[in-house]
Amino acid sequence: MSTDPALYPTERLTRVQEAVRKAGIDVLLLTPGPDLRYVTGYDAKQLERLTCLAVPADDDPFLVVPGLELKAAQASPAGQLNVDMIAWGELTDPFGIIADKVGRPELVALSDRMWALHVLQFAKALPAAGLRLASEVVSPLRIRKSPAEVAALREAGEAIDRVHANVPNWLKAGQTERQVGVKIAEAIFAEGHVSADFVIVGSGPNAASPHHEVSDRVIRDGDVVVVDIGGTMPSGYCSDCTRTYAVGRAPDDFRAYYEVLRRAQEAATVSVKPGVTAESVDQAARVIIDDAGYGEWFIHRTGHGIGLETHEEPYIVEGNATRLENGMAFSIEPGIYPGPHGARIEDIVVCTETGFQRMNNGPRELVIV
Amino acid sequence: MSTDPALYPTERLTRVQEAVRKAGIDVLLLTPGPDLRYVTGYDAKQLERLTCLAVPADDDPFLVVPGLELKAAQASPAGQLNVDMIAWGELTDPFGIIADKVGRPELVALSDRMWALHVLQFAKALPAAGLRLASEVVSPLRIRKSPAEVAALREAGEAIDRVHANVPNWLKAGQTERQVGVKIAEAIFAEGHVSADFVIVGSGPNAASPHHEVSDRVIRDGDVVVVDIGGTMPSGYCSDCTRTYAVGRAPDDFRAYYEVLRRAQEAATVSVKPGVTAESVDQAARVIIDDAGYGEWFIHRTGHGIGLETHEEPYIVEGNATRLENGMAFSIEPGIYPGPHGARIEDIVVCTETGFQRMNNGPRELVIV
Repeated sequence: MSTDPALYPTERLTRVQEAVRKAGIDVLLLTPGPDLRYVTGYDAKQLERLTCLAVPADDDPFLVVPGLELKAAQASPAGQLNVDMIAWGELTDPFGIIADKVGRPELVALSDRMWALHVLQFAKALPAAGLRLASEVVSPLRIRKSPAEVAALREAGEAIDRVHANVPNWLKAGQTERQVGVKIAEAIFAEGHVSADFVIVGSGPNAASPHHEVSDRVIRDGDVVVVDIGGTMPSGYCSDCTRTYAVGRAPDDFRAYYEVLRRAQEAATVSVKPGVTAESVDQAARVIIDDAGYGEWFIHRTGHGIGLETHEEPYIVEGNATRLENGMAFSIEPGIYPGPHGARIEDIVVCTETGFQRMNNGPRELVIV
Repeated sequence: MSTDPALYPTERLTRVQEAVRKAGIDVLLLTPGPDLRYVTGYDAKQLERLTCLAVPADDDPFLVVPGLELKAAQASPAGQLNVDMIAWGELTDPFGIIADKVGRPELVALSDRMWALHVLQFAKALPAAGLRLASEVVSPLRIRKSPAEVAALREAGEAIDRVHANVPNWLKAGQTERQVGVKIAEAIFAEGHVSADFVIVGSGPNAASPHHEVSDRVIRDGDVVVVDIGGTMPSGYCSDCTRTYAVGRAPDDFRAYYEVLRRAQEAATVSVKPGVTAESVDQAARVIIDDAGYGEWFIHRTGHGIGLETHEEPYIVEGNATRLENGMAFSIEPGIYPGPHGARIEDIVVCTETGFQRMNNGPRELVIV
């Protein structure tokens, strides 16, 4: 848990409460997850027992926590906020506690990641309330990273770059994807993350399945391997970086489209600056891949925002006319998957005042291991 | 991903559909998580893009997946089921696809862990439907583990026991909790897990905070340290085991209540057999701790069920009159937290035909490191 006051400034809660008021929401209810951490710095686990920060538009925020979590909550950065903490015992109804305190709200916003288990109980405890998503209120704040948040993303990028720098030591013919994946997961911790959030090692035909994870397939000479990995740092900020490797040698047809992909990824990256739309960055990659005749094999968006979540706003996708601003952070990760292999190259990029900065700086040229 | 057919038998989907029908639910909607994995074997990630298995009471089940996940879904055990897979592109509305296929259901059951992001979109796409929780239908099946599931829990227990066996090598005065935690997380992977789900290293006063995780506190001679750790195996099944260590020496007041705790944990364990209630197991531990005068410091329930989730039914808590049956699996983990230190001892226990089996078998006597 980081208590860096620059990363989780105490005035954020005030700004969020102002946003709640402006949005016409009566009360914002945040269960453990990225919004709660953003607002309070409290890195609580999502569990069946309810932990919930209530931010009423016109009253003091309060935090409801299970009794056995109280000390952890007090010791977290949330303990530095001027927020009443209400502990509940194993035999009490925490939804009733919240309902009693907030009266009869007409419009309630819930964490986007709140479990249905809790959503349905809030719907019952607050029967008069219309339900909305917290992202309506919190995303417009979270989407622009502060300098401290960009520094945290850079630290995460450097950590995952160090893992990728070691991948050639583990990625060898004769190893299974899972064996390589375990080495990578261990390294994600060793390089400073507190969790390994995903480890994709897609070899041979699996390289053509973008969200394949790992399997017991034995890696062979001549395989192409997509390695897409990321974790969460003690700060709460996430890393996410993809490189595609060739084992022993690279097939000629693969070389041809890998070079197209590299150019597309570069073109999308250098197109980033304040004022351009998210979809134009997607288009910058797509036009190069389309023109080279591989368009039908680029089957996903170009990227996703990143911060306290691996996937958050802004999405770099057709139809998203959001204009980039200084501090927005997102992946640029076009892919081409024609089978029997495939490739993806991914960096995290931050929009700056005048252009862009890459958080990942490992080689993008084809690495033959 | 395990495709062990004994662990994820294909007839399970049929049994779940029967349960949907009997419960009077029109359609069960499962997004990625433990229920989806239980029913299909498909270990999908929960993401903003909708993946959803629909199990109508009276029609064929179908799986809606994002286009880029289709190959992974087909390669998963779900590919062996007779289930139509419908891929959707980045610009389509998957909720509309499901609404069109299921007509106008009156009662819909949603995964307990479905995100509010998806719950509210289903509520909009199916405006006539009452919303219920999937656990109503799926928990009564999941709560009794098959022999293959018990074997998977045993494998998980052995893996986490091997990690605990190494804790004395890392837990030393001068190390921070976080440094010890990183070693433990690495070992959780090295011993066969695919994720490290939680690593609690609570030293000194932090031992008295049951859900403390790790901090930068430096461990000192004479500290008591609660180490509560667990992860997920390739099978999908979880481990969870707590031991309390003393560094260098153990304070006398601590020794006194540690021994009470050990007796309470043992008494609750040996009370397990078919027909006794969940709350009676809680009571078996509590009465010993109460009688010894430490009752006010035992501030949580005695345990929780475990399987594809770390916390699931049955909860070993006052008020839960569920009668134990052969195959039910749960933690037994009383704790005493008087401050300035605290202790907890936790094993996973399975109710058998005639009594109980422990999945964790490391020493429960006080270990001084």
